[in-house]
Amino acid sequence: MNNRKGNQSFILPSKPEIISSAAYVGKKEGEGPLGALFDTVCTDDTLGLDSWEQAESKMLENAVRLSLLKIGKDPGDINFFMGGDLLSQIISAGFAARELQSPFIGMYGACSTMAESIITAAMLTDGGFSDLSVCGASSHFSSSEREFRYPLEMGTQLTPTSQRTVTGAGAVVMSASGCTNKKLFENVIITGGSIGRVCDYGITDASNMGAAMAPAAASTICGHLTDFGVEPEYYDRIITGDLGSFGSDMLYELCYSKGFDISEVHEDCGRKIFSKEQKTVCGGSGCGCCASVLASSILPEIEKGELKRILFVATGALLSPLSSLQGESIPSIAHAAVIERRDE
Amino acid sequence: MNNRKGNQSFILPSKPEIISSAAYVGKKEGEGPLGALFDTVCTDDTLGLDSWEQAESKMLENAVRLSLLKIGKDPGDINFFMGGDLLSQIISAGFAARELQSPFIGMYGACSTMAESIITAAMLTDGGFSDLSVCGASSHFSSSEREFRYPLEMGTQLTPTSQRTVTGAGAVVMSASGCTNKKLFENVIITGGSIGRVCDYGITDASNMGAAMAPAAASTICGHLTDFGVEPEYYDRIITGDLGSFGSDMLYELCYSKGFDISEVHEDCGRKIFSKEQKTVCGGSGCGCCASVLASSILPEIEKGELKRILFVATGALLSPLSSLQGESIPSIAHAAVIERRDE
Repeated sequence: MNNRKGNQSFILPSKPEIISSAAYVGKKEGEGPLGALFDTVCTDDTLGLDSWEQAESKMLENAVRLSLLKIGKDPGDINFFMGGDLLSQIISAGFAARELQSPFIGMYGACSTMAESIITAAMLTDGGFSDLSVCGASSHFSSSEREFRYPLEMGTQLTPTSQRTVTGAGAVVMSASGCTNKKLFENVIITGGSIGRVCDYGITDASNMGAAMAPAAASTICGHLTDFGVEPEYYDRIITGDLGSFGSDMLYELCYSKGFDISEVHEDCGRKIFSKEQKTVCGGSGCGCCASVLASSILPEIEKGELKRILFVATGALLSPLSSLQGESIPSIAHAAVIERRDE
Repeated sequence: MNNRKGNQSFILPSKPEIISSAAYVGKKEGEGPLGALFDTVCTDDTLGLDSWEQAESKMLENAVRLSLLKIGKDPGDINFFMGGDLLSQIISAGFAARELQSPFIGMYGACSTMAESIITAAMLTDGGFSDLSVCGASSHFSSSEREFRYPLEMGTQLTPTSQRTVTGAGAVVMSASGCTNKKLFENVIITGGSIGRVCDYGITDASNMGAAMAPAAASTICGHLTDFGVEPEYYDRIITGDLGSFGSDMLYELCYSKGFDISEVHEDCGRKIFSKEQKTVCGGSGCGCCASVLASSILPEIEKGELKRILFVATGALLSPLSSLQGESIPSIAHAAVIERRDE
């Protein structure tokens, strides 16, 4: 048995199912174009807790619980919770896992964490190691700003390439084929994916994550298309996580130079989640961006048949505040999952 | 096909092989009881680089490269590198992955990362998603002290329960059964494991990691023994990662209260790596502790038949400097891998 495909990709013969999802976001996200689709929009981004970090962890925990509640399950029913976030030592996910009490596999892929978790959980499900699991990721504007950039109290100006970290969490429930009866989604399956390599084009500006991550997105997308021997149009959409508008333009050029024109089928969650009027400059970012957009908008579109087959590509910038202070550039990575509507 | 076993455990029918390993450690580790077994002992813990963080990353990269070199392979030959470290945003592993250029799956389980990576990679291998992969983890005394405790320049005194973070990295090469010809180890296989849950007994002292992590070790060990329906003596050794002497004593009591006496078969990598004369108080700790001891000492003992079957249980404390400052206690987790000598 060999499910490997090409250089960095794989197929999933048993076609694991995504059977439920939930998204929990902040006020500004709720005011955006997708606002009506999120399960919960909080008006107070501390959730009444003592810190933004605690609030972020609670959002993730709540998203996981809600995704399970929708199919009549609870955290005691799952084989594992897999996920992570942007904060040092992934405390949002770690403390959420403490409350959930499910077996926990902690991942770190920065903003690529949702795709990293989904492909890893899908492989474990296909391999017979899970009947039911949950993947989740979160981010928070206020916890990220003080972790990676400046204290909010400083009121620094936004640069022309900056993006706004999404306050939000998304969770998806994965089931082995035919293992679960009650489902929110009847026809959403995962059929393959690609594991990313770390790319580094020497970007050092922590306010230009789009540029730092575009090379990784191009590497994984072009690697994936080559491994599967398909053109971009094989997918209804190639949906990146949070490149924003500047990073998306870079992505088109990088893919074009490798022989693929993806501009017609590409969408970016960072551009979908905020409107121009919301003044987030280049759009949204953060683990919670693509996690909440996938959970609330993309998966329902696949279920309804509005999208038949997508490539979900989340990108992550693998910097730390310390690596930046030490003069290092920003390496990045992207992982890709093929999510399809099952043929009837 | 269902490879799940009990509540949190699994079996690996195809019995993935561990075919090579390498360990790269610092000077003090090289002066300890296992000194002669490590592949490389560096005399300068910066490796001539500009920071301890860069040195830690280079150690991990070197351990991965060396583990592959021993079997005539290089990073271009593997399906993925899976691993992590203790630093914020796992920069040691991320920057190592940038140099290695293999597909990369970043994990975060604090000091449990080596076991977390090994069981996840073993499941992916068993599932047909990898022929050849490498798991690795690292830590560094100086990078950890300033990340989690105090600047070294302060010269703070050691508390009676403190442990010394190991400067070192370990890597193991995993192969699908029968997929690779040239091997350093001919007979080392992985046959199962258990995924940990997050435990929190309310410990808040970042200088008492042993006490914070012992409950997680007890939870996973007792859960594993129950899932497999075996007694502790089923294993020649139950080897924890870095509980140290204080944490090990706590572990015996916690397991005893759950009906298992593991004191006769238990060993701890944190106690093995340093001698009493080296004055590390309760022993070694850090991701690199059990990773380097496994790679240099335990796996060769299994290959030689001195150990027939072990349970490798690495424990991790899921705190961050920020969570501690915010008054949070220290949650912890432990993952377990069953590593055996193949019957001839």
